Order: sequence, then structure tokens, then C-alpha cells
Amino acid sequence: MRLTVTYNLAGVGRAAAAKATDIAFEQTLELAPDLVPSALANRVAGRVDSVTTLGRGRSAAVISFDPAIVCGDLPQLLNLLFGNISLKAGVLVADVRWPDELLRALGGPALGMAGVRDLTGVRGRPLLCTALKPLGLSAAELAERAHLFALAGIDLIKDDHSLVDQRTAPFEERVERCHDAVARANRVTGGNALYFPNVTGGPSALTDRAVFARRTGCRGVIVNALPAGLGALRPLGATGLAVMSHPSLAGAFFHRGHGIAPAVLLGDLFRVAGSDAVIYPNVGGRFTFSRATCVAINARLRRPLGPVAPAFPVPAGGIDASRVPHWIERYGADTIFLLGGSLYRQSDLARAAGRLVDAVRRHSDG
Amino acid sequence: MRLTVTYNLAGVGRAAAAKATDIAFEQTLELAPDLVPSALANRVAGRVDSVTTLGRGRSAAVISFDPAIVCGDLPQLLNLLFGNISLKAGVLVADVRWPDELLRALGGPALGMAGVRDLTGVRGRPLLCTALKPLGLSAAELAERAHLFALAGIDLIKDDHSLVDQRTAPFEERVERCHDAVARANRVTGGNALYFPNVTGGPSALTDRAVFARRTGCRGVIVNALPAGLGALRPLGATGLAVMSHPSLAGAFFHRGHGIAPAVLLGDLFRVAGSDAVIYPNVGGRFTFSRATCVAINARLRRPLGPVAPAFPVPAGGIDASRVPHWIERYGADTIFLLGGSLYRQSDLARAAGRLVDAVRRHSDG
Repeated sequence: MRLTVTYNLAGVGRAAAAKATDIAFEQTLELAPDLVPSALANRVAGRVDSVTTLGRGRSAAVISFDPAIVCGDLPQLLNLLFGNISLKAGVLVADVRWPDELLRALGGPALGMAGVRDLTGVRGRPLLCTALKPLGLSAAELAERAHLFALAGIDLIKDDHSLVDQRTAPFEERVERCHDAVARANRVTGGNALYFPNVTGGPSALTDRAVFARRTGCRGVIVNALPAGLGALRPLGATGLAVMSHPSLAGAFFHRGHGIAPAVLLGDLFRVAGSDAVIYPNVGGRFTFSRATCVAINARLRRPLGPVAPAFPVPAGGIDASRVPHWIERYGADTIFLLGGSLYRQSDLARAAGRLVDAVRRHSDG
Repeated sequence: MRLTVTYNLAGVGRAAAAKATDIAFEQTLELAPDLVPSALANRVAGRVDSVTTLGRGRSAAVISFDPAIVCGDLPQLLNLLFGNISLKAGVLVADVRWPDELLRALGGPALGMAGVRDLTGVRGRPLLCTALKPLGLSAAELAERAHLFALAGIDLIKDDHSLVDQRTAPFEERVERCHDAVARANRVTGGNALYFPNVTGGPSALTDRAVFARRTGCRGVIVNALPAGLGALRPLGATGLAVMSHPSLAGAFFHRGHGIAPAVLLGDLFRVAGSDAVIYPNVGGRFTFSRATCVAINARLRRPLGPVAPAFPVPAGGIDASRVPHWIERYGADTIFLLGGSLYRQSDLARAAGRLVDAVRRHSDG
């Protein structure tokens, strides 16, 4: 099977067909068709399988590639799908169909949804996640919040994605204090809340931070996947840590007629790159995704995908305790709900978190 | 001095001012202003220095940040500049002013323009670069082309950015053969042509490939900077290899009212991340940059920037032998001209390359 990509293009008819051929050559041989011997072109160029009209002056071109061109390498996958043609107008990666051979080479999440459930011990209900913030608090203050969230029964307590190694809460001190605060709370509750530090950094900082987190006893981390490079996720997962990916920068790709569709980038690419869970901006929050986009991301993260394990969708924002039943019904139990602002908006954080935990458990039991 | 960013926004007046405040908080505290004690907000939030009208319903907001938030870390720099707000509509990073303290921490190119000139021995004229392609040729066939280009006097001979480790031309065999082919040509010409292999890959593959290239005798490499992660460039430069960055995927950021302006992404961010030379799609080629954009990228790469060395602009495409005088006059001697398609379009590659080399030398002597 070939790696089969649907590109939505500006143009119809012959113009669309010409654009499709251009993509097929630009992304592989990077020479015009008349400069390449036809035997070589047949072997290496993308193959335009179909071009159909979408209406409103746009077309869908289905182009398939030899998966061996990817070399099982994430950066090269991005380059093949959208590298040079990102610089042309009106090209959107709308869908990808994946050969098993390529999926096996890429690997996907090391733990997946089942592995994250094993870590937390939570079955049959959605997980609750919150963020330690804001930047500017000391490690001790962040740890205090972590303690309180864990006492209230939040399952996953993650660093805000902008906490790095700032002097106000240096990485190692923060990880030690927050991990300890959650462990202390677990001894009180008999629960199993987990603290996920943000390990984003350049290649060596990221590795050092992951090693430190693991040694401190953390079972998972968050990472700003695009700033760090999607190729960083799989090595991170290989350390045994659960990988929760944050969509920082992803909005650059999300234009109606240009880029990579959110469900493909966050639902497929973040997953095959090695995310066990993927955060995305939920409809109704302060970002711009539609309900259909959110549902499509959920479906992509969870769908059967050859040898690649399913990953947890992590809708963030637009959720509070009173709306929990609504969202559980919409998104189902295999979801991690990430609540930040709506908790912090309440004066008593502990009570707010407690109400939320109750709402989830009540609704999931019922 | 603070890290000072100009964001172009959709909206004017109060709406623009509100958006600016939103960015200042979203990118730092990630909480609404009313949820943060004012002492903390004053210390940590971005500061809106000004909001001015640009006309046509758009405004420019100048927002400054404490550079310590970046921790000298490239992924965190990207996250601070555009991470979460990439997911909001109508926000463009239009300009950045850099404090020296941050520039020192980021480092920039290890060699810079002067270092690349030292490697090649070329003074007082632009450098010529071409690409080994297409994907699908064997390592021996690519090496034959490298030999012929080096004999003709091309200064830099780089892998096409889609050559990775495909079975048709495996990385190690390709590097050995191409490096050897160029060295043999240099012994004939007395010249000093250099071969730059493509080392793009996930973190460990990239490191392994760079080490192999260095051991084989290569003096520089190319890398798909965004697919690999901009944080990968500086460690690469620390190996002593010249780093030429390719703009694969960069087009995702280049929308009129959303993203990161080409001159900021390719001219500033690629440079401070550690590129000694930055490839971009020249006006008149098969991509969409305007002349003004190209000139702005050149200016950003070469301008004085505190402790950060200048980097070579590498305009690619839209250039052939007859147009060389025109481009040298436009862009000046501190340019690397990258020619691919226009060479390959000619039946006798060696003669085509020779004519180009003559044109550059004649025009630069004159």
C-alpha cells in the first residue's frame, strides 16, 4: 500500500490537475516532469490517483507516495507531506491514509490510551487534568496547588506549557516539589494522581529534563510538540514516560485553504509521532475550533490504525463542573478533560476541583 | 532591555487594545488579567507598549516581554512569540527587537558569513550553490553529478533536501561517494568546492548523520530546520559543521494577516537559532515571495545583531546564467545563489554549470 494523501487545492479542471502533478513532483523529485526520465518518474514521483471537484472553485487531489521515501523518519514525513508546497498558495493536507509498513516504522505512542489508564488506574470514566500556573509563581507555590488538586482527586496535574526553567521556578526544584506534593496527597487519599512536568527544550535539554523527571518518579510529561520538533516525541516515549503533547504553534497550519487540517495534524501526525495524549483547544473556549473539528480530532486519535495504539484526546477549555455531563455525553469516557481557567476563576480552588471530580464520577457512575 | 515584538492584529481602537492585552497575558500567565494579582501581572505579563492603527481595519501592537522567560531556549522562544496565539485568528508576528542578553543565550550561527567564506576561501564575490537531485538516483549517480559540478567551479554542492536515507542512495554511501567525488575534482581544479549532505532526521539520527559527515571530511550540512525543530540547529553548529537551513514547512507561517512574517522567521529566527546560511524561495521562481520580502530577508540575515554573527542569504530559484549580473547587483556579493532547476534544464550539465561560474566571476571582477 502507498501513503495516500488528499490535498485540497484552489482551482478546478485542468488547473487543478496541473497543480496535483506539480505537487507529486515537487514533493519528491523536485524537478519539473519534463526534466526527469519517465522510468525514474514512474518509480519516484507521487502518483495522482484522482482529482475531483469540491465546489466553490476548489478540488481534492488524491496523491499517493512510496512510503519508503519517508525512511520511517518523522521530519521527512512532514517534509514529504507539506515541505516545499507549504510555500505555494492554496494547498491543504486534508486527509492521509497510512500503510501499515510506515506506521510500524514510525511507531506511534509507546503507551497509548490503555497504557495511560494503567498508569492512573482509572477505568470506565474520563480522566481529569489540570494545569499548574501561572508562570511567575515559585516552585513551592506551584507545588501547593499540585497538592491541593491531587487531594481533590484530579487525575493528572501538569505544568503549564510555558513553565520551562525560569528562575522563579527552576525545573529541577519544581519537579521535585510538585512530584512530592502529589505523592503526599496520594498517601492521604489512597489515590493515584500523577504530576506531568513540562520537559520542552532543545534536544539535549529535553533529554536531560525527561531523565530527571523519570528519576524523580514522574510517570509522564508534557511537551510542546511543534516547537520541540515532532521527531522528539518518540525518543521521549521510549524512556517509559507518558507523552502528553501540547498544540503550541499548531495554529500556523490551520487555514481554511492552506496548511494541514487540524484532525490530520493533531489527530494523525501527533499520534503517529508518539503522543499518548494530545491537547487541543475545545470548542466554546477562547480559541477557534468548531465542534466538528473537535469531534474529528477525537475520532482520529482513537480510531484503529494498524499497529499504532490509540491516543487520548485532551480537549482544553470551555468546560466547567456544571457542563461536565454534557461533555462526557458528547466525547465519551475515553477523554481527558483539561480544565485550567474555569478552576482558577473560582476563589476556593480546592472546592472547585472537588466539585468537578464529583461531577465526573457521578455522571460516569450513572 | 526587553524582548519587543510587534504583532499586527485584525481590529482597531478598543478591540485592538483588548487583543493586545489578551496576547500579553495568553503568552505568559495564560490566565485572564482579573485572575492574576497585579504585582504578579506586572512582573510576568507582556507589557503593551503601544497600539497604533495600520489602516484597513488592522493595528500594530508592540508588546515587550522579560527575556528571562525564554530561558535561552529556542522552543520556548517560539512558544512565547506565537505558541498559543497561533490558535487565534488574525495575529501576525511582524517584527522582533532583541535584547543582547537573549541573543547571547541563544547563540546564533557558530560560523556565520565570515566562517563560511573561510571554509570556501571565496572572497569578494557571491558563492554559487547547487543541489544534487533527483531522489531516486543512486549514490554513484549523485556523486557523478557532484564531481561534475565541482569541476565546473560551483562552490557549494548540497544534497536535495528530500534525500535522507532512502534505499536508492543510503546516507553513508552517498556521503562517502559525494564527498570523495568533490575532493577528486578539487585535486584537478586546485579549487575548494564543498559538499553539504542533508542530515535532517529525528534527534538521534540527526546527530549520528552529522558525526558521520564530519568524520568523512564534510565541512557543512543542510537541514530542514522546521521539520527537525529549530532547537536542533545550534547543537549541529557546535560540531564545527556549517549549517545551511532549508525552509521546508515554513510556508505554513506565511499568511498575510496570520503567522510569522517571512523576514522574521527566515531572517531572524532561523539566524538566532544557529543557521550560517538560510535558503529561501527567490522572487521569480516557482514560489510566491515578493521582491520586497526577499530584500527584507537578506537585510535581516546580514544586519548587525548584537553578539550574533551575520548569516548568508541563499535565494533559490528564478536565477540562470544570463540573469546573474542582475541578481548580483540586486542582492550584493554577500549572497549564496542556489541554482537547481535552471541548470538541470540544460542538456549539458557541465557546460551549464561552467557558464554560470564564468558569469559570476566575470561580473564580480568587473
